[in-house]
Amino acid sequence: MPDYSTFESVIPVRPDDIDMNQHVHNSKYFDYVLAARYDQMERCYGMPMEAFLERDFSWVVRTSYMEHKRSLRIGDHALVKTRVEEIRGRGVKVGFEIVKQSDNKKVANGWLDYAMVSATTGRPQPIPEDIIETYSI
Amino acid sequence: MPDYSTFESVIPVRPDDIDMNQHVHNSKYFDYVLAARYDQMERCYGMPMEAFLERDFSWVVRTSYMEHKRSLRIGDHALVKTRVEEIRGRGVKVGFEIVKQSDNKKVANGWLDYAMVSATTGRPQPIPEDIIETYSI
Amino acid sequence: MPDYSTFESVIPVRPDDIDMNQHVHNSKYFDYVLAARYDQMERCYGMPMEAFLERDFSWVVRTSYMEHKRSLRIGDHALVKTRVEEIRGRGVKVGFEIVKQSDNKKVANGWLDYAMVSATTGRPQPIPEDIIETYSI
Amino acid sequence: MPDYSTFESVIPVRPDDIDMNQHVHNSKYFDYVLAARYDQMERCYGMPMEAFLERDFSWVVRTSYMEHKRSLRIGDHALVKTRVEEIRGRGVKVGFEIVKQSDNKKVANGWLDYAMVSATTGRPQPIPEDIIETYSI
Repeated sequence: MPDYSTFESVIPVRPDDIDMNQHVHNSKYFDYVLAARYDQMERCYGMPMEAFLERDFSWVVRTSYMEHKRSLRIGDHALVKTRVEEIRGRGVKVGFEIVKQSDNKKVANGWLDYAMVSATTGRPQPIPEDIIETYSI
Repeated sequence: MPDYSTFESVIPVRPDDIDMNQHVHNSKYFDYVLAARYDQMERCYGMPMEAFLERDFSWVVRTSYMEHKRSLRIGDHALVKTRVEEIRGRGVKVGFEIVKQSDNKKVANGWLDYAMVSATTGRPQPIPEDIIETYSI
Repeated sequence: MPDYSTFESVIPVRPDDIDMNQHVHNSKYFDYVLAARYDQMERCYGMPMEAFLERDFSWVVRTSYMEHKRSLRIGDHALVKTRVEEIRGRGVKVGFEIVKQSDNKKVANGWLDYAMVSATTGRPQPIPEDIIETYSI
Repeated sequence: MPDYSTFESVIPVRPDDIDMNQHVHNSKYFDYVLAARYDQMERCYGMPMEAFLERDFSWVVRTSYMEHKRSLRIGDHALVKTRVEEIRGRGVKVGFEIVKQSDNKKVANGWLDYAMVSATTGRPQPIPEDIIETYSI
């Protein structure tokens, strides 16, 4: 079984991410992971989202799972590490870990199960061989 | 000079709208006005956003202005009143007032200047005569 | 083992919830569940969030899990059903299902594991007996 | 009449900022300005938001004005320039300009009128002399 690379992105906390509890709003952590994946698709895999769309492909989230450990606050930076955990016929499972950049303490971890779909119809699509290779680093 | 109708929509405050100051985040009030316009385009003008898009038209905001008077909090409902203030060749100026539904106290007021554009190219478009009529109620 | 009540809330989709894929942004579904819980805490359990805060209690999400089935779009209403699935010493597991109100088709389902904490310190707290009762309906 | 400094912050566009029109959602530009001010309060004025809160001061927006020129898209970075335009007894007017970092083209410009309030009561407060000095650079 292959062992895929882990990539990192830094996502700065914005004031509009903070909720009434004075820390980053829960659901925003999923947006941080999404931002990290977009960054890494382009910078690390060499295939930005636009390249998928040009071929009428898009990724949709099928399942989300997150364990929340600590909160991020105003002024913090999230260090988001993601890693392909499994590539299947029509989907990819991506694991992630979010740590606070300043002290490396764990904020959250989890995984997202993405399906490949047609950008036009939304129907599930088999992942082409070259994209499997692109992601198999 | 014509006098256009004022329409009302109720927008419930959601917990994710609340920011670190324990009230609705400033920029969210613009989203409440947007939600009210979408509701009213369909319900009051009889021409939902989809009908514009089908004809390759879209609206973009050219200028935004808002005076903030009071805050909304968790559990509140915004009553958003909007009114076409002026129809020009390529744009429409929409005035709005937001009050707290429970006590009718003013939360904010202002206006938005919208331009009509091609949904495909984003280029400014003259507003067709029938759409001017649709909005002239 | 007790069987707890299922409660329902209607959450209208707002235009600012829609993302580049023309449907409700993934992480927003967690915000819909949060909005439903706030509504139900007050309307169904008779103990609004404010009543928790007055006693220096707050709820934080420890784990989130969601399966996404279909998307909601502009103009749709989410019908969010939630149910206490398990009450433990320091936490509550809440199951949810989101359906599209107009056709009752499933949009998503999942669960959230909440911990009770001190609103002041953020430290985990045992759930007082009267709150367990409030939630055991 | 004094001439105050202009400061700059870079705010990366996140995928969750993009709306159904495939560009940064209108109201998000106000959040970019807010993020820039928070950054600059700490980094440029040497007085982070926390320092205001410790003295029971907070800033609230009284009036917002923005002209939208061009859109930002996924992958773009906003360069946000802000400048104190006027300091009055109980408020500060801050002008801003947003340009796209890659080509320096103007995205938006406008101003925000902030009032100083008590963080506890929300009541307007005169700006203390030392804070006027801090902002008069």
